[in-house]
Amino acid sequence: MNRSTQPTMKDVAREAGVALGTVSRVFNGFPVGEEYRRRVEAAAEKLNYRVNNYARGLKMNKTNCIGLLMPSLKHPFFAVLIDELTSCLTRHGYLTHVMITNSDPEAEQKSFTLVEQNKVDGIIALTYRPDIEVDPGIPLVSIDRRFNDWVPCVSSDNFHGGELAAEKLVELGCRKLLFLRIGPTLLSEADKRGPGFESACRRLGVPYEMLMVNDEETEAPIYRFLLEHLGAGKPDFDGIFCNTDGLALRICSFLREQGVRIPEDVQIIGYDGILNFANGMYLCSTIVQPILKMAERSVDIILGDDPHPDNSSHVLPVFYASGGTTRDIPSPPAVANIYNPFRATEGN
Amino acid sequence: MNRSTQPTMKDVAREAGVALGTVSRVFNGFPVGEEYRRRVEAAAEKLNYRVNNYARGLKMNKTNCIGLLMPSLKHPFFAVLIDELTSCLTRHGYLTHVMITNSDPEAEQKSFTLVEQNKVDGIIALTYRPDIEVDPGIPLVSIDRRFNDWVPCVSSDNFHGGELAAEKLVELGCRKLLFLRIGPTLLSEADKRGPGFESACRRLGVPYEMLMVNDEETEAPIYRFLLEHLGAGKPDFDGIFCNTDGLALRICSFLREQGVRIPEDVQIIGYDGILNFANGMYLCSTIVQPILKMAERSVDIILGDDPHPDNSSHVLPVFYASGGTTRDIPSPPAVANIYNPFRATEGN
Repeated sequence: MNRSTQPTMKDVAREAGVALGTVSRVFNGFPVGEEYRRRVEAAAEKLNYRVNNYARGLKMNKTNCIGLLMPSLKHPFFAVLIDELTSCLTRHGYLTHVMITNSDPEAEQKSFTLVEQNKVDGIIALTYRPDIEVDPGIPLVSIDRRFNDWVPCVSSDNFHGGELAAEKLVELGCRKLLFLRIGPTLLSEADKRGPGFESACRRLGVPYEMLMVNDEETEAPIYRFLLEHLGAGKPDFDGIFCNTDGLALRICSFLREQGVRIPEDVQIIGYDGILNFANGMYLCSTIVQPILKMAERSVDIILGDDPHPDNSSHVLPVFYASGGTTRDIPSPPAVANIYNPFRATEGN
Repeated sequence: MNRSTQPTMKDVAREAGVALGTVSRVFNGFPVGEEYRRRVEAAAEKLNYRVNNYARGLKMNKTNCIGLLMPSLKHPFFAVLIDELTSCLTRHGYLTHVMITNSDPEAEQKSFTLVEQNKVDGIIALTYRPDIEVDPGIPLVSIDRRFNDWVPCVSSDNFHGGELAAEKLVELGCRKLLFLRIGPTLLSEADKRGPGFESACRRLGVPYEMLMVNDEETEAPIYRFLLEHLGAGKPDFDGIFCNTDGLALRICSFLREQGVRIPEDVQIIGYDGILNFANGMYLCSTIVQPILKMAERSVDIILGDDPHPDNSSHVLPVFYASGGTTRDIPSPPAVANIYNPFRATEGN
């Protein structure tokens, strides 16, 4: 091997007969099976592979800081997620660099260079842009988005959440269901909510429709669809599952403006479990994401305490909570002390 | 250049034909002429110069990182403030260490030691604990709390906000006003809201009452007071100013449960300008804090670009917005695109 052709991680993977991700895990200090570690190390030695600067820097010169990459903190889901991630990392003696990308692809890509610059030991990221390139040398945990086989992905159980929503609407008396989705063009783990919903509808033999808008700019097609299906005042569906609480709340407002009563005429369930900051109640009936557990698992993985190192997909259980947009009794406040929001702690 | 000598900033300056300071400014994200930036970047690329932030930190004694100290990110005011502070610091080429203290006095005090440890260049802090000690050697900007004459304090115009609330309630037809306060025992700049309200009530000659609960545990005394003043169904006050939007929203719920109509019987104004994350509307009628401007001013001060260096008190203008708990028409959404919360930008 001459100076102009340095062996790459791919060469090592080929030589060792393992996946690229396994090589990445070994060089980044993540736990892997002993047999795999031995094969990777032998292959690296044979090829005279030199761990690149930043990966070596990580090992010898830890920053004890983790980068947190989030689209925005103006959305409560992201804000609570950053709160839990930061609190959890603080308990482990780590600092956090919080990076707000506003979904700007350049900002998202640039954030990954922080590892190269030895500013952070690793990154926990929630990204939406389709064209992000991930270097196997960067210790990365992705939330809600599966890049490939070797980047660990943490998400709530989106498929089962969709099933749960359909089952709950039927249990509460709905006879024709509708699924509504608005979101980025990039499909992520979150897009298993629709298939989960559809699967339960078929299993239960209940008629349903699906309307998915893969567009970041407008949800106008959803409102047109709803108006077309309002008929003579009464809508021809009586249960709606929306892919987020935000959409569910907007659909509630829109239908109420059209004279539709919620939950009497139509029952609506969202997804996320967003709380009313003033009193700790759920803003609408919802499938609750286990944000605290998602944060803890992400931190465990990035710090090398992954309980399931051979599994790159970490799917955590969700639950249903009532928030007044279905006919059941609203769930109690999900934070400890509603009169002291400064000390509010999550209830799940 | 041989393999054993990495290029330095001096090499880059020589290659680009610019001063060392210009190279430093480019790498630190400070503004320089476009032509200079181009030359420095070209030289860095040619020499394969890799920014080594750790070494740079030691040399210049700068980390290019600012610590942000916040009680929680579960409250939207703090979350949006951190969002704006981080975005603003990113534009200046700085990273942020976000520290969530959950109002724990030890955590608040400990965060200040990060400067001593050379982990951050300075701190922007929102703290509530009375017993914090501040070292004059620490570059610190305090939001909402005045420590002493030499720590710059950034806040909204709390006194005028209180005046504005009283004036607006009278303008909208109220004849007897009430001020309600719940909050930490430590009094801060925010506690000028009450005196501002009182001052306007006196000036306008309108009768008023003030009820202040300086307790973090319970606002039960406020509900007892309201029940005592409900009389035979109709309350004996018709305009309420609450010291936060959170309290205003809880008072609305409580009074509605008692059969009081809002805004027909009682009009309520809060303080903060919290937005409904789902549609960008104000959650209640409110005095809006200029969060973006507060973030920009705090960053200007901590980076040494304070436009008023002789003034340690930075009071920024507020405005009133209607959010449906007063009899005027609700203000339009305060974010750019209500159907795309991931890209929402603040409207003030």
